[in-house]
Formats: sequence, structure tokens, C-alpha cells
Amino acid sequence: MFNFKYYTPTKVVFGKDTEQQVAELIKEFGGKKVLIHYGGGSVVRSGLLGRVTDILDAAGISYVTLGGAVPNPHLGLVYEGIELCKKEGVDFLLAVGGGSAIDSAKAIGYGVTNDGDVWDFYDYKRKADACLPLGVILTIAATGSEMSDSSVITKEEGLVKRGYSSDYCRPKFAILNPELTMTLPDYQTACGCTDIMMHTMERYFTNGGNMEITDSMAEGLLCTVMENAKILKKDPKNYDARAEVMWAGSLAHNGLTGCGNDGGDWMTHKLEHELGGLYDVAHGAGLAAIWGSWARYVYKECLPRFKRYAINVMGVKEEGTDEEIALKGIEAMEDFYREINMPTNLRELGVKATEEDLVTMAHKCAVGVGGAMGSAKLLKEEDMLAIYRVSM
Amino acid sequence: MFNFKYYTPTKVVFGKDTEQQVAELIKEFGGKKVLIHYGGGSVVRSGLLGRVTDILDAAGISYVTLGGAVPNPHLGLVYEGIELCKKEGVDFLLAVGGGSAIDSAKAIGYGVTNDGDVWDFYDYKRKADACLPLGVILTIAATGSEMSDSSVITKEEGLVKRGYSSDYCRPKFAILNPELTMTLPDYQTACGCTDIMMHTMERYFTNGGNMEITDSMAEGLLCTVMENAKILKKDPKNYDARAEVMWAGSLAHNGLTGCGNDGGDWMTHKLEHELGGLYDVAHGAGLAAIWGSWARYVYKECLPRFKRYAINVMGVKEEGTDEEIALKGIEAMEDFYREINMPTNLRELGVKATEEDLVTMAHKCAVGVGGAMGSAKLLKEEDMLAIYRVSM
Repeated sequence: MFNFKYYTPTKVVFGKDTEQQVAELIKEFGGKKVLIHYGGGSVVRSGLLGRVTDILDAAGISYVTLGGAVPNPHLGLVYEGIELCKKEGVDFLLAVGGGSAIDSAKAIGYGVTNDGDVWDFYDYKRKADACLPLGVILTIAATGSEMSDSSVITKEEGLVKRGYSSDYCRPKFAILNPELTMTLPDYQTACGCTDIMMHTMERYFTNGGNMEITDSMAEGLLCTVMENAKILKKDPKNYDARAEVMWAGSLAHNGLTGCGNDGGDWMTHKLEHELGGLYDVAHGAGLAAIWGSWARYVYKECLPRFKRYAINVMGVKEEGTDEEIALKGIEAMEDFYREINMPTNLRELGVKATEEDLVTMAHKCAVGVGGAMGSAKLLKEEDMLAIYRVSM
Repeated sequence: MFNFKYYTPTKVVFGKDTEQQVAELIKEFGGKKVLIHYGGGSVVRSGLLGRVTDILDAAGISYVTLGGAVPNPHLGLVYEGIELCKKEGVDFLLAVGGGSAIDSAKAIGYGVTNDGDVWDFYDYKRKADACLPLGVILTIAATGSEMSDSSVITKEEGLVKRGYSSDYCRPKFAILNPELTMTLPDYQTACGCTDIMMHTMERYFTNGGNMEITDSMAEGLLCTVMENAKILKKDPKNYDARAEVMWAGSLAHNGLTGCGNDGGDWMTHKLEHELGGLYDVAHGAGLAAIWGSWARYVYKECLPRFKRYAINVMGVKEEGTDEEIALKGIEAMEDFYREINMPTNLRELGVKATEEDLVTMAHKCAVGVGGAMGSAKLLKEEDMLAIYRVSM
């Protein structure tokens, strides 16, 4: 068991109509001039953006808007947001959307409050000293960025996708209204459920420090997401199922499901980041496409965890050798992905990578993690390439 | 499912030797003049208080000390602390101890930052506008006050024990070093485990709003505490078991295990508060002594929850009627209390109450909750009296 810090200062306001509280929450956290940052047109078309600006107008809160955050959000828009904030004297960020809008807003927040190029933080060159205060109205349950300390940005030049984490960017508040996620396409819902599970699975498959209370809560969370992902496939407007998944999304990535362990494995995420940078695939689908290949490559060196996962999460019977049980758990997980129409390899993901592409991704991935990474099994560049090859 | 707020801003620093970080944490949260508030002599005898003052001395942080917080902490000492803080210009509170020291410090914090009599808040006459910032070094895993919004104070005149809750008093940081709990007497350890479980059980036994993710995490937490309470009975210096229980204590009462429900039942706590006010019994033991009588009185009106508890937490087989399963769960819970040497009635608790005492407690309890309270079953004064009678 390792020492740990647990810090989740985000005030979560959860449930129906909670976006009505946005103005009072901004005021509570001292916001006077707001940048409303969002992604594509759905926030406009659904009327949510208009409702939010109406509420801010009525409360006398001044704001400017910036849309256009795309999945795997781009550094260019971050620079644009930083300029806009400085020009307009923005002192509070409100992200309306999913992980793309939130992560982009976090990067803007770093850029406004720190001198120099904001990409330096994502390029591991230096650390941020501050971030603008940030609030969130969440419209997609997936990345957990609404409570997390992390953000992921893609630099267009060279398609480099990198994450940066610090407590400064943890949102001050997060408005989670499950109704706002009801109109998501099935594919996005399934991608979100996959991402949520992976945030906890990355913390679960480790070779050190696990606590029973953390494991038991992680397993409860994973079972809940699987159950409700299946419900949402048939009944996308089921409020309770939307709520279970939405709350799971925040808890899966706020640190709770990793307390006491060695920090987690995170290699499925790192391998997917290269995919996402190069091919602009949906993050959740990319994770599903990689996970099985990663799992089969590493499970023998993390057997007790894979066995426990198979039994406690996937419901595999405790029969046969540990290896057999572990493999049945991996197969059951892939069956679940297929059941919610997620890919289990790069082909199904729609990625037609050449051997040269795989070599490039493995190299970029290795550089990105500083040479080698992974707790279930420490992976070097040749391991990463091997996993990419198997995942084709 | 109900809308909910979840707000746990406390920075938790968990693990071995973490008290070494106390000075930097106080500085991080702006403390310049500290009141170190503690309870009995164990904090002094163990050397912990001396280590803490050495660290503050070395860091150049000025402080005054105030000991003497007793279980069911008294209003008189709170008044004394308020005077001391005002006289010394204290701007930060550091509670070193368990729930008594923390709750007493919270009340002092209210008293320093609000005009008028601090008891008004506990007497439901008005609400606090602020609280001094507070940090905690925890030495007993039990009340969860290190992350919670609540505090309970006893007014000596009339022995009135009342709680007051607001986000203002949530600690800024909590230092949780399981090693500091290793020298606790077995009885205090068992009382703590009981209290921890009850904080989650009060939220679990409701007639409304339950979420699957909340339930699954609550059940994981409860199973973990039971398992490790048994380990600690045999091996009190088991670090991992101490750590599981300590972290469970914080999570059991920071709000996590009640998200989405109707607010919880809380009548076992309310019934115990009258016991604790009148007889000065250990809180955890008082809860164990009352719970079974409460459970048998209410279970028929909350049958699905008692059935689920029996199966998922107590491991009762799904055989027989729902009532039979529920009753087996209650019996198994009482067996667990007996296994860790907790009382299951007032007699075993050592309370020799007359019928007149019971009538007085039921009346005070009913007044304290504003007439009637309870989600598993709404209890009025006559119900409270009936439960007290059965618990003798």
C-alpha cells in the first residue's frame, strides 16, 4: 500500500435542471467576466448555450463565447482562447460540453495565468503555477475531466497528443444534469462508457499497493457502468441509467479508484493517444480497440489482478488455472465491447495503418512516456510496437 | 433518484509519516497563527503533540494550544477556545485527535467568525456565515469529521447533544497516518469501526432515491470495514487493516455513500445522541446498542433495502421470504457486533435507565428532530420510546 493524496475540491451539483444554478455558482467562485467555451454545434442546436447565456444575462454576469473545440482538442484554438481572454479581461472559464471543451478550457486557463508558451506544460518542459478558475456544464459522460486534474491537447504540427496534470485545473464546480446527455448518438454513449471504465481499469491493473476498499469500490463502479451501458443501448433516454453512468464518469477519474496503489498502469491510454493524434478517432473507441491486445500481452505478469477482475467484475467462475480464468475475463470484456458496438481491434476501429505507421506510433508513444511505462508490465518501444501489430 | 450536491474539498494526505507535512499544509491554506486543539493526554504521551509543535517551530509558524476536548465534546471548552482565539489572533485551527477534538475545533471556528452565541447554530436558531479554516491530524478512525460538514457538541446544562452541519467547517486538509491509530485500545477501535459502518448504513437504509453506483460502493466499504475490524481484533498493529479502516472512515461520512438518495435515515444516530448526552457512553458502542432494536422496529417498512443488505453485505443466502432474509441480515449484523465486543442492547452498554429516563430521552430526541424523523420508517416520539424500551 502506497501513501497517497486525494484532492477533489470540485463542487458537484447533480440532477435535473441543475444548469439553472450556473450563475450563482460562478458568483460563488468569484467570476465576473466569463469565457463560455464549447465544442460543436450541438450545444447551440439543443438550445443549451442560449439557456446559459440567458441565465448569465439575467444575473448580470458579463461573458464572451468561443466555440469550436473538437475531439482531441487542438492547440490552435487554445492559443485563440488565451488571446481572447487577455483581450477581454476574462477571470472565469465556463466549459459547456464534454472532455474536449473542458480540456481546451483548462489549457486556456493555464495560458492566461502563466507566461510563455502553454505547450511547454504538455511537452514536459516546465510546470504551471496557476490556472484560471473553471466551471463545467457537462453534456457527455466520458472523460471525467469535470473533476480531474488532467487535460489532453493535440498539437496540429506533427499531430502530437499530450496530457498535462495539476491540481490547479480541477474545476471549481461541475453541473451534471443527466438529461443533457440523452440525445447523444449511441456510438458516443458507448465510447463514453468505455472511457469511464478504462479510467478505473488503468488504476486497477497494477502490480503494487492495492487497497481492498479501493478495489471494492472500483469493482462496484465497473459493474454499474457495464449494466447501465447495456440498458442505454436499448433505452437511450433512461434517466436513471444516464445518471448512473454520468456519476460513474466523474468518480472513475477523480482519483478515488486509485487510492493506495502505485499510480496505475495507463499504457492503454498512452497507446490510444498516438492513435487519437494520428487518426482522430473517438477516444473511447480507440481504447476499446487497443485494450484486448494490451491485456493479452501483459496479463501473465499481473495475473492476480486479471484473475480478480475476471471473477469480481466479469462474473467468470473460479474454475481452471489462474491463467485460464484471467483469459476468460479478457474475452468477456471484449464480448461486452462487442455488445455495445465498440471495436476490439484497429481494423474494426476503421484504422488502416501500415507497418510504417505502427513503427511511428510506437516510437512517438515511447518518447511520450519517457522511454518505458506501465505497472501491469513495463512496456518499452518494442513492446508497444508488438501490441500495435497484434491489435491490427 | 434525487438531485444531490457532492462537495469534498478536503485535501487528504494519507500514509506513513504524513504528519511531517503539517507545516507546509498550514502555509498552503494561509495559516499564520494556529490554535492546536486536542483531547486527552494520549496525544501528549505518545509524543505526537511534541512532534507537531517541533515542526511548526521549525517552520516559523506561531501557535497556541488548547487540550481537554472530551468524547461528546462540551460547549464550555468551545467558549474557552473562542476566547483564546480572539485574544491571540488565531487565523487557523489544527485539530490533533479524533472526532471530539475536530468537532470542538469546528465549533470554535464558528464562534470566532460569527457574532453572538455559537450554541445558536446547534440549537437550530440561525445559520453560520463562516468558519475559521481548519486542518486535522487524525488519531482515531471513526467519526469521519475529518472530511465531513458536521460537528456535534454537548451543552452541559441539561446534557443536550446536538449536531450542526455546513460546508464552511469542512477541513482544508486531513492528515491520515494509520500508524497513529495503532495504539488505540481494542474497544475504541471497535467503536470506531461501528461508527464508520453506521455512517454508511444510515445512508443505505432509506425508502427513496438510491443509486446503484452509490449502493455498490457503500456495500464494498461496509464489507471492507467488517473484514478489517476482525483482523484488527487479533492483530491491532496491522498497518494495512488500520489503513483500510481509516480511509473507510473518511469516505463513509464525506457524502459519497449517500449520493442520489433522500438524505438517509439517521434515526440510530439521533437515538444514540440522547444516550451520549445523558450517559457519556462511547458513540460507536451506543450506536451498536441501539441499531438492532431500531432495525427490528423498522425493517418491514424498508424491506427491499434490508433484504439487499442481508445478501450483499452480510452474505445471507437468498432463501426463504424477504422478511426471513432481512431478519437473518439483522441477526448477522448483531453477531458481528458481538464478535468485535460491541454491545447489542443498553444493558450490555452498561446503561441502567429507568422508565422515566427512557421517556425523557424519547422526548428530548423527538424535540431534537423537530417532532418526527426517519426514512426507513418515520419515527415519532412513541416510536422512539418503544425502541428504547426494546433496547433495554
